[in-house]
Amino acid sequence: MTAADTQIVPPALGEPYLLTPGPLTTSRAVKDAMLRDWGSWDGDFRAMTRAMRTGLLDLIGPGADAYDCVPVQGSGSYCVEAMLGSFVPKDGKVLVLANGAYGLRAAKTMEYLGRAFHLVDKGDYLPPRGDEVTEILKEDPAITHVLIIHCETSSGILNPVEELADAAHAAGCKVLIDSMSAFGAIPLEVERLKYAAMVSSANKCIEGVPGFGFVIARRDELEAAKGNSHSLSLDVHAQWAHMEKTGQWRFTPPTHVVAAFLTALEAHAAEGGVEGRGARYARNRDVMVQGMRDLGFETLLAERWLSPIIVTFFCPADPKFDFDAFYEAMKERGFIIYPGKLTVVDSFRVGCIGQMDEQVMRQVVAAARDTLAEMGVASAAPPAAALEERKKLAA
Amino acid sequence: MTAADTQIVPPALGEPYLLTPGPLTTSRAVKDAMLRDWGSWDGDFRAMTRAMRTGLLDLIGPGADAYDCVPVQGSGSYCVEAMLGSFVPKDGKVLVLANGAYGLRAAKTMEYLGRAFHLVDKGDYLPPRGDEVTEILKEDPAITHVLIIHCETSSGILNPVEELADAAHAAGCKVLIDSMSAFGAIPLEVERLKYAAMVSSANKCIEGVPGFGFVIARRDELEAAKGNSHSLSLDVHAQWAHMEKTGQWRFTPPTHVVAAFLTALEAHAAEGGVEGRGARYARNRDVMVQGMRDLGFETLLAERWLSPIIVTFFCPADPKFDFDAFYEAMKERGFIIYPGKLTVVDSFRVGCIGQMDEQVMRQVVAAARDTLAEMGVASAAPPAAALEERKKLAA
Ligand SMILES: Cc1ncc(COP(=O)(O)O)c(C=O)c1O
Ligand SMILES: Cc1ncc(COP(=O)(O)O)c(C=O)c1O
Repeated sequence: MTAADTQIVPPALGEPYLLTPGPLTTSRAVKDAMLRDWGSWDGDFRAMTRAMRTGLLDLIGPGADAYDCVPVQGSGSYCVEAMLGSFVPKDGKVLVLANGAYGLRAAKTMEYLGRAFHLVDKGDYLPPRGDEVTEILKEDPAITHVLIIHCETSSGILNPVEELADAAHAAGCKVLIDSMSAFGAIPLEVERLKYAAMVSSANKCIEGVPGFGFVIARRDELEAAKGNSHSLSLDVHAQWAHMEKTGQWRFTPPTHVVAAFLTALEAHAAEGGVEGRGARYARNRDVMVQGMRDLGFETLLAERWLSPIIVTFFCPADPKFDFDAFYEAMKERGFIIYPGKLTVVDSFRVGCIGQMDEQVMRQVVAAARDTLAEMGVASAAPPAAALEERKKLAA
Repeated sequence: MTAADTQIVPPALGEPYLLTPGPLTTSRAVKDAMLRDWGSWDGDFRAMTRAMRTGLLDLIGPGADAYDCVPVQGSGSYCVEAMLGSFVPKDGKVLVLANGAYGLRAAKTMEYLGRAFHLVDKGDYLPPRGDEVTEILKEDPAITHVLIIHCETSSGILNPVEELADAAHAAGCKVLIDSMSAFGAIPLEVERLKYAAMVSSANKCIEGVPGFGFVIARRDELEAAKGNSHSLSLDVHAQWAHMEKTGQWRFTPPTHVVAAFLTALEAHAAEGGVEGRGARYARNRDVMVQGMRDLGFETLLAERWLSPIIVTFFCPADPKFDFDAFYEAMKERGFIIYPGKLTVVDSFRVGCIGQMDEQVMRQVVAAARDTLAEMGVASAAPPAAALEERKKLAA
């Protein structure tokens, strides 16, 4: 597929590209789908809800008939909380594999729930590995579930989900996956991964607008979830049971956002599904990373952990570099980038997802080059401390 | 103000009016505001969030400076849960005043929270009164909070919120209000009502699209709420503290829905704020109710409890009347009505809120007249049992 095939339409005049991991730049067609009001009780909207649930199940490959899809109003974090509160029984225990902000947020969610968990905190960007999971599960037989963050968006690391799921299953544990920023662009086949449940949201790789997320879970897990939830609103079983019975959402759905999402799902299919979408994003990443490296920037992560979702770069050591000024100058050039989320060194992030192709990514690199020149930054090379940090990862 | 002043623009060709209590028919301008993607971290969106919070506080009258507004992602029920979980301490006890589905849902929420509550269930449509609240609070001194449903949308009854708040305060209790379907059209002045907190949502009387709601609470209550919440996602204190510090939502906001809401708030102000909006809705109700009565329909509620939000009518006793057929025929004529939610007798509801004026309401009545004729329903009079039910209310 060439760039022309993807039919990227630039945003309206004066509207910047969002190089952020959701909300992201959506197509005009997706936004146009919001130009109508839908009655949430009406048969037309019920049909849209049904189509959406079916369309999402189509993305998990063979074996999907043992699963069901339950949309949940709110943001992605709500879905993570809904998944943990609904599928982990009150006497369960979760191994939370964290290597960034979203893993830590899941651990914090467990604290709110008052349910047992074991936190593995790998710091900002080291991936958790299968061996250590095996080790921990051997030592702590109370653990019933393992929570894996698919792409930890705070660094952009793509965690080794298959290896981690295998280790969990070998120890008889169930697997829960936060695939917020990866689902729809990176395969998450149930046949291979056999997860009990996963969550993602409307405004990531499917390229919808924000307002709800969804849980995809085994039907037997959905049945068994009855009575587990700590929250009426976030009770996945109750939402599912109501939807099965009436075809409706339990509470008012974000009708316009759902309509936009259906249009986004159609475009996703037209682009070749998970494979086609993932290929465009990977090309976005490759072109952008190569261009930024040519300018002297360095990525936080080694090649093998770089996701096609978002990439973290070290801030240049040059004292003339200032992130806020860089951000504003990039914005004026039509690109909204994302601040870093690392604790040790200064960084920023550039997203590869949304309605953008490699041509756009080349413009991003050109904008970065012009901005550095304007700021008088001679070299984009990071401080020595940053490279030291990175060395630890390679070790 | 005449109908012309309100500048109601009919929906696009082929799109029905939503005579439903949210999602409702919004203006084209509100929907057009969704035709752009916003970066949620960006300064432009932070300014929009600030403007929205300020604009909402402007609606509660003098004394608003002791209050703050905290938007919450998700539907209205999420906001009710967030309010109960955040402002009722773990050892608090809530008097839930229920007279319909939403009061009962609040009681169910308390069950999920595992916190103490005393439910007063007045059935489908009898209003709770100040005297009985005084009585209950005298008998049960453990009660710390009283939850009032402002307009109980399941019947359309406008509960006597001032009388109930007075009774609560006289007994030293704090007042929490679910004003989901009333806020923005019916005054909810803090100076008079002195509530600790209230909730509403984007897609009701402000005429935005669904995707979030908001809490308006005393600042001291917001401070004191720290550590109360059972849920990370629904922790109003945490959302507030984060917003105060960073200007951002804790988790991804429904950016398009927020943009739409800002446009809706502007139109609300242009129409004369709460007073102007309420006056149009009251006129909608008066014209519609009179027209329906002229056809022989009877309202569930006596005059004094009829809200300008939504009105419940008994289904005609005539055996030729069938609600599903009536619904579909009304839809074909361009009007989506709402099924009833009563337990004892068959009913349906017609909403008065959204982008509609008295001319539209006249068309609704004409459509009902034509539909009855088409169905061969000679009289729209309700069954005797329904009128018996209603007599109890008058007693
Ligand atoms: C991996 C991951 N988990 C959870 C979230 C939280 O989603 P939200 O911001 O919609 O609550 C995100 C958001 O980017 C994410 O990338
Ligand atoms: C009074 C009242 N409370 C709560 C709700 C629940 O709101 P939602 O459906 O957005 O969850 C509604 C919805 O109409 C309502 O009218």
